[in-house]
Amino acid sequence: SRLLSDGGSVAGVGVDQELISAVPAHNPTFVERNFTEAEIAYCQTQPSPQSSFAARWAGKEAVFKSLGVASKGAGAAMRDIEILPDENGAPRVTLHGDAKAAADSKNIKSVHISLSHSDTTAIAFAQASTT
Amino acid sequence: SRLLSDGGSVAGVGVDQELISAVPAHNPTFVERNFTEAEIAYCQTQPSPQSSFAARWAGKEAVFKSLGVASKGAGAAMRDIEILPDENGAPRVTLHGDAKAAADSKNIKSVHISLSHSDTTAIAFAQASTT
Amino acid sequence: SRLLSDGGSVAGVGVDQELISAVPAHNPTFVERNFTEAEIAYCQTQPSPQSSFAARWAGKEAVFKSLGVASKGAGAAMRDIEILPDENGAPRVTLHGDAKAAADSKNIKSVHISLSHSDTTAIAFAQASTT
Repeated sequence: SRLLSDGGSVAGVGVDQELISAVPAHNPTFVERNFTEAEIAYCQTQPSPQSSFAARWAGKEAVFKSLGVASKGAGAAMRDIEILPDENGAPRVTLHGDAKAAADSKNIKSVHISLSHSDTTAIAFAQASTT
Repeated sequence: SRLLSDGGSVAGVGVDQELISAVPAHNPTFVERNFTEAEIAYCQTQPSPQSSFAARWAGKEAVFKSLGVASKGAGAAMRDIEILPDENGAPRVTLHGDAKAAADSKNIKSVHISLSHSDTTAIAFAQASTT
Repeated sequence: SRLLSDGGSVAGVGVDQELISAVPAHNPTFVERNFTEAEIAYCQTQPSPQSSFAARWAGKEAVFKSLGVASKGAGAAMRDIEILPDENGAPRVTLHGDAKAAADSKNIKSVHISLSHSDTTAIAFAQASTT
């Protein structure tokens, strides 16, 4: 019988920081390549879309690091890492495509994320776990 | 027999950063509304009370995010999130009042915290878990 | 039947930030006291050895905090906390000597780490767990 607990291991952690002014949030090619339609719609309604895009960008990088997979460089599908507010306004990660496949291959069931930005810098922390 | 493991899931993570100079540590109303007597006594004995209050403020914000509850804005009881040094000098979180109730409602048993400050910026990371 | 879970508790977290220019990476005494031969070899092959040493230094501080042990000040053996890239290029922690003994005494089986640096600042996050 399988008596395993509902407790899960931490599979990996990821941290990232981005200078808010350095994220090309006004470049439609960058935005459409890296953010989902729902993310774009959300960021554009925020008080500072620039800050929101930058925080999410840091978040995607942090999630990517937490998965512990080799970077595919420019081909890394950041659009496959979607970060949207849950019913309480807290950011929640949903993985698609290659990111989902990478997580599945490592038995990663969930990734928790938190975002913060000051006037100049966005930071993000992600944690992947097998629960 | 009890077959459950002692392992727990991660319930949420929280990160926050604060510009040290922006935290009104010299405003008694701010301090008394947001810090417990023990926190105030501790911070006032540190080499830089301003930095200590700022780091703890970032810590409270990070803990709040890790609980994953909706913000009550100005009414959020930061005083209910108490961060004091343990016997090794490491920061330890104790929840009271509404913060404790929110944690209980999500089966959160502990929140780990770490704080760091540079000359200008305090950052904090918190992790809530069901163990 | 297997009654033990594969899940582990989080034993502690650690965060640290360092101004890259403040880490004396050009001081051989500092470097040899605090970094292993493998770490030095790795950092010296990176595009910015200064940034790599600074990020690892922040990483060692974060790991130390995550172990939750009392600091021994200048005697803290940062060299016992080794951070090297794994096969995917992600940083992986190996503990030696006093750091290993401290981890063993708290039943800590693994420490996950993530590093990030901007032009000016390195930040690191560590998480110790009993898995």
